Amino acid sequence: MALSHKEHAADVCESCTPLDDDGRRVEQPRKKALTNRVRRIEGQVGGVLNMIENDRYCVDILTQISAIKSALDGVSIQILSSHANGCVRRAVQDDGGEEAIDELLQVVRRMMR
Amino acid sequence: MALSHKEHAADVCESCTPLDDDGRRVEQPRKKALTNRVRRIEGQVGGVLNMIENDRYCVDILTQISAIKSALDGVSIQILSSHANGCVRRAVQDDGGEEAIDELLQVVRRMMR
Amino acid sequence: MALSHKEHAADVCESCTPLDDDGRRVEQPRKKALTNRVRRIEGQVGGVLNMIENDRYCVDILTQISAIKSALDGVSIQILSSHANGCVRRAVQDDGGEEAIDELLQVVRRMMR
Amino acid sequence: MALSHKEHAADVCESCTPLDDDGRRVEQPRKKALTNRVRRIEGQVGGVLNMIENDRYCVDILTQISAIKSALDGVSIQILSSHANGCVRRAVQDDGGEEAIDELLQVVRRMMR
Repeated sequence: MALSHKEHAADVCESCTPLDDDGRRVEQPRKKALTNRVRRIEGQVGGVLNMIENDRYCVDILTQISAIKSALDGVSIQILSSHANGCVRRAVQDDGGEEAIDELLQVVRRMMR
Repeated sequence: MALSHKEHAADVCESCTPLDDDGRRVEQPRKKALTNRVRRIEGQVGGVLNMIENDRYCVDILTQISAIKSALDGVSIQILSSHANGCVRRAVQDDGGEEAIDELLQVVRRMMR
Repeated sequence: MALSHKEHAADVCESCTPLDDDGRRVEQPRKKALTNRVRRIEGQVGGVLNMIENDRYCVDILTQISAIKSALDGVSIQILSSHANGCVRRAVQDDGGEEAIDELLQVVRRMMR
Repeated sequence: MALSHKEHAADVCESCTPLDDDGRRVEQPRKKALTNRVRRIEGQVGGVLNMIENDRYCVDILTQISAIKSALDGVSIQILSSHANGCVRRAVQDDGGEEAIDELLQVVRRMMR
């Protein structure tokens, strides 16, 4: 069963206000937890660096890289989820959302590769 | 630039009417072209069958299977696109679409693997 | 622990003899089970065809396509395994196998996408 | 055409000598270039961290994460290549290499997901 709008509130990215020339400004929900998650991935990449420098076994390095890719997929899914529930939903309600949906599909296509 | 709603019309799956116990009924847009595309993939799988039976070189079989997977991804993206532009958009406009968006994200997660 | 050469024997593709102009001839191990596996996938693709023709729900079709892709990955891994244990290993023992290893890596690169 | 053994020499990981309790010791070929490549990826992950902290647009973050995954695939393929041409080839020549090939296939299976 889907959560009610209220329960979802914390997982929706904040309204896309213009951000100078730079694109839209979007505050990610649970930003602190998300940045910690990415910081952990940064640490894992540093770990791979050490493994190469310390002449660790190829297969162990490859296993570690696969783990990093899975962790990145987890982050992508979290951001995609708040984007779909936030920016895309609002766009559909505001103007039909065709542009937002096209953009979402392009992102998914890239994520599948 | 995104197409206007009108131009998109042919690429949106038809309204999700109840289909007995069996789930929703959804007519895919450009159904004829889509079924032809899937029939071609069915033929490619038959081709792999022949290659194995005729003792063709492993690498050629593997290359053919990769081509089939790409073709399936193409079909998935087409169906996902009409689903997002049709069922999901309508659900957002009708009731906020939380359930539809959750379901969409689950599908994308499966497609990424 | 790895199986001994003897136990592996049935899972190694048969020696790559020239096959006219057409490329090498390679008999897959457990050929009957392998062709049955591919025939089942062919049937699953036919199932997707029926789902589209019968206006089944988009998400159910997408789920089925993901299942087909997983099944194809299973077949690829099986063929890759007999190829690595058969053709590639023999090439390494015969002439160092550089060409066979390069080709293997190209195949893996394609399979990763 | 495949390169001769000699030309390949620089791209083959160095002989797998025992490394205490810790596993095998394997010096990656072109180690300096490889570590630079991984350091660049570490920087890209730090870039994603900044994007989230600076409330950058979801889609731009997702695009950046896809780029990181591609870069990691590039590193994996490079390490897999030197592993196959080095450790695995030597294992095949020394003892038939069944264990090394099994391990290689497990790694490829993980990389495909």
